Amino acid sequence: MNHTEVLTRYVTNFVDELVANGLTDAVISPGSRSTPLALTLAEHKEIKDWVIIDERSAAFFALGLAKKSKRPVVLVCTSGTATANYYPAIVEAYHSRVPLIVLTADRPHELRGIGAPQAIDQIKMYGDFVKWFHEMALPEAGTAMLHYVRNKAASAYYIAKEGNQGVVHLNFPFREPLMVDFSFNDVWEINDISCTSPILPTFEGKKHLPKQQVEEILRQLAGKQRGVIVCGPQTDLDFPVAVTKLAEKWGLPILADPLSQVRSGAHVSDEIIEGYDALLRNQTVREKLKPDFIIRFGAMPVSKAYSFYLKQHQDALQMVVENDEGFREPTNNPTTFIFAEPTIYCEALANAGVETTSKEWLQLWKQFNDIAKKHLNDQSDSEIREGEAIRAVMDSTPNQSTIFVGNSMAVRDLDSFFWKTDKQIEVLANRGANGIDGVVSSGLGACAAGVRVTLVLGDLSFFHDMNGLHAAMHYQLPLTILLINNNGGGIFSFLSQADDKKHFEALFGTPLHIDFKYVVHMYGGYYVHAKTEADVKQKLIESYNREGLSVIEVKTNRDINANWHKSKWQAIEQEILEERNR
Amino acid sequence: MNHTEVLTRYVTNFVDELVANGLTDAVISPGSRSTPLALTLAEHKEIKDWVIIDERSAAFFALGLAKKSKRPVVLVCTSGTATANYYPAIVEAYHSRVPLIVLTADRPHELRGIGAPQAIDQIKMYGDFVKWFHEMALPEAGTAMLHYVRNKAASAYYIAKEGNQGVVHLNFPFREPLMVDFSFNDVWEINDISCTSPILPTFEGKKHLPKQQVEEILRQLAGKQRGVIVCGPQTDLDFPVAVTKLAEKWGLPILADPLSQVRSGAHVSDEIIEGYDALLRNQTVREKLKPDFIIRFGAMPVSKAYSFYLKQHQDALQMVVENDEGFREPTNNPTTFIFAEPTIYCEALANAGVETTSKEWLQLWKQFNDIAKKHLNDQSDSEIREGEAIRAVMDSTPNQSTIFVGNSMAVRDLDSFFWKTDKQIEVLANRGANGIDGVVSSGLGACAAGVRVTLVLGDLSFFHDMNGLHAAMHYQLPLTILLINNNGGGIFSFLSQADDKKHFEALFGTPLHIDFKYVVHMYGGYYVHAKTEADVKQKLIESYNREGLSVIEVKTNRDINANWHKSKWQAIEQEILEERNR
Repeated sequence: MNHTEVLTRYVTNFVDELVANGLTDAVISPGSRSTPLALTLAEHKEIKDWVIIDERSAAFFALGLAKKSKRPVVLVCTSGTATANYYPAIVEAYHSRVPLIVLTADRPHELRGIGAPQAIDQIKMYGDFVKWFHEMALPEAGTAMLHYVRNKAASAYYIAKEGNQGVVHLNFPFREPLMVDFSFNDVWEINDISCTSPILPTFEGKKHLPKQQVEEILRQLAGKQRGVIVCGPQTDLDFPVAVTKLAEKWGLPILADPLSQVRSGAHVSDEIIEGYDALLRNQTVREKLKPDFIIRFGAMPVSKAYSFYLKQHQDALQMVVENDEGFREPTNNPTTFIFAEPTIYCEALANAGVETTSKEWLQLWKQFNDIAKKHLNDQSDSEIREGEAIRAVMDSTPNQSTIFVGNSMAVRDLDSFFWKTDKQIEVLANRGANGIDGVVSSGLGACAAGVRVTLVLGDLSFFHDMNGLHAAMHYQLPLTILLINNNGGGIFSFLSQADDKKHFEALFGTPLHIDFKYVVHMYGGYYVHAKTEADVKQKLIESYNREGLSVIEVKTNRDINANWHKSKWQAIEQEILEERNR
Repeated sequence: MNHTEVLTRYVTNFVDELVANGLTDAVISPGSRSTPLALTLAEHKEIKDWVIIDERSAAFFALGLAKKSKRPVVLVCTSGTATANYYPAIVEAYHSRVPLIVLTADRPHELRGIGAPQAIDQIKMYGDFVKWFHEMALPEAGTAMLHYVRNKAASAYYIAKEGNQGVVHLNFPFREPLMVDFSFNDVWEINDISCTSPILPTFEGKKHLPKQQVEEILRQLAGKQRGVIVCGPQTDLDFPVAVTKLAEKWGLPILADPLSQVRSGAHVSDEIIEGYDALLRNQTVREKLKPDFIIRFGAMPVSKAYSFYLKQHQDALQMVVENDEGFREPTNNPTTFIFAEPTIYCEALANAGVETTSKEWLQLWKQFNDIAKKHLNDQSDSEIREGEAIRAVMDSTPNQSTIFVGNSMAVRDLDSFFWKTDKQIEVLANRGANGIDGVVSSGLGACAAGVRVTLVLGDLSFFHDMNGLHAAMHYQLPLTILLINNNGGGIFSFLSQADDKKHFEALFGTPLHIDFKYVVHMYGGYYVHAKTEADVKQKLIESYNREGLSVIEVKTNRDINANWHKSKWQAIEQEILEERNR
């Protein structure tokens, strides 16, 4: 067998085994050393390949696609700094538990550490942010080594998606010539092992608590009247039904994060409290809502007010449910950790025969929540505020739709203005490490799963990943962007940095002074500036009937925005406190 | 002392000590956790701060600034994925030996590993690509701890610039509140230690070979007639004079890489051969130029033909000079490594009393070089070719100027079309890992050292770092960009990938189909499309009298370009082979 045949059989068997395990999508950045992988992924008829030039955008695109499709996605790039551009998305995928399979091409051993071009040390280069690293052997094509590559492909796919999902990294040393040739006999298989018969079929269990442990938990909860269920960011679409049933049975409020998937869907019930971020900003209100116990699912909620609530009530019995591993409890309060699959666990609790505890408790939350929503829902005739733009999105978004939301102000405004609805809306964000990077590409990656996406983000996030827009043009992806442009870092106007008049604008406000219309037009997108809430709604609805990229820009003022929010919170707090003093 | 005073004194003493050691510039990306560092750097009157929002661009900007100024530059960002965006530039800085001091803000220990927002594991997150990592202590302000922070600042500055220059990474845990206050008494100093009196003054030696070792080297070279001096990429501006004197004394050709700083300057002499890349493409020509010995300085040259030459002549005695450490010899040929400061070493050899060896040998190289230059210099009336655009740059660039060149085709065309000149031109590139990322920002960083820069790069490199252009607008930096747009990856048309008709355009050609005029206008730059070599020259000269950013775009065709180069190489080879057969 010559070099080309060995190389080809090695790589085809690897790629084919990924398909046998379920791979459907690969995101490829151009390069020379990665040629064998790129050509083979493009050639395999079961794989859709996405070619994205900027590797940073490519990795976030893969992240968005994996997050929406709930399947591992392959990333391929050449050797050198290309690989380092994946790092931000890998860090995010680790923390938000998204399955990615990173395949980096490398120089062979004899070209490492001796100043060869584009040769850097790629061994374990992503540190502990990957679940598994393996340095692949140099290509060989004996039966044993073709079993080996299939074994590694199968393991990679499995490890990416089992337990806490995450990233695996395989580094491939390739010698020149790098071209592959698919015309060899049975080049896609070895001894009849092909994508129709995986080499390592797997069955995987989920964590179930034994009956005695459930009983022990119930014993600990017994007699506690004022309980709260908290649902943080998570993407399992079966979970909302189970947790809502539990809350109904036990008569408990659910503080549902906008990324919990609990605020929308047919399951939506009275128990769901969406206004808690506004409520829990006031210490007296937090005292009135003092809990006996808290059961949290998913990651820590977006709301900072909620973390104040937790810190104020360290004596509440807190239970945090993690489906596999991790100790995500950022207040360091005493906490019971329950490692169990959340849906199954909710069902176990709901079926345990416990009855509603205190009707007044749930009533109190609902009453306060109504007050918060009333104020947040106030219509005004003035120029549009950021929260009003978010309201417009939630109003206009059709049933069965997907929203991707940026970090910093966008997700916080979504937290404040996303009312529970029986529409089925999946809301995604990069809440692993909360970066403002890669958001455009993540939204487009979600589109690549075959759905229209509404992406809501601020100007700094939009700027950070404008390169991502190229994929919208190239693949005509159906993306609607609501760009909330407050010309800089709006969140800093809420922080103490805002008091430093000397350096604030230069270091924190950081206005870009960019007219984004140019870049939208450069990528062949539709651009429009919307000035009122009604206008945003109309433009959104129009965009849902348009092909490709639409960008609706709303222009706001950071100071006015901060004051508007503060006045809402004050009004809510005032009404609640007066109400209770009567 | 309250929290704010402790925090302030800790950070001011750190920053002040950096200044005492020579720091002049800091590149800051906005964020909350990094507030103490950002405010202090902005407040220190001796530091120029550059605020750049996209951390990837920020890091490449710092790299370009450090490369041009030949001084360490500080980078500051907040916690989370922001830090991971530095990785590509850190990898490049490691390989191209550029001094950077990376300061990442972090959550304090009690907020790590528990799902707190924007908290990722930043300990040693850049692996072996940094020379030194240190996790800073939590802020304290006793005398001992203020000496400690000054000690760490001084060490960081020294380590970044000593020996093989590179990156140091300090990670700062900060607790809230994050605001600092400069109104405390003597807040910038401790016990009269301030930026006027560094805490660890340093003296550093360079590697000198002892006399006996120089004699042993001369013994090994004695009797060898056909020697070649090779100067690869390096940035020491004293070296070209010394190496040229050595070559004159010994009558040896210097194969001078376009990034060696040897092709231009008052020292330029007959010995300098610029056309070797075209000459060494042909095996017969390589045989005619068979060397007895090779002495190489700097990194491996850009020219792939040169590496063929090396591989063909494994029996030549090869000596590679490294100024501190590293084994940069990517052919794995038997090689003598000389660890010595190159300028001093050249002087030692030149002063050793050895005479010119073979006049015919140097004559042969000069004769071939003239043939190569004649063909490469042919003027044509057809539409502009990529090499002609480079010729226009070298013709128009004034004395005392700086050129930054992109990787892939741009640097290769510069290799072919940069004729030696007595103009003083510093030519820089990111040749550590040869990435197409971060090139715009690196060029702008060089501008930030206080000079006008001409940046020559292709459309994919331009695209990859368009975000970098924001700094050109924000700081009105004097950058002229020659954008050679062949609508995709031009280099692949020279490789075997070009034979794969089925996947070539999608995976390797990767046309962007972007009209870059939009983005230049978005950033307030001047844009013009130039169509002939004369036109490019004129537009370049005009741009040198304009403030801020000018982009001159040349549009070419990848296939025509590849054929044009090949026809040049064939004509050269044909004339040389006919000449020698006569």
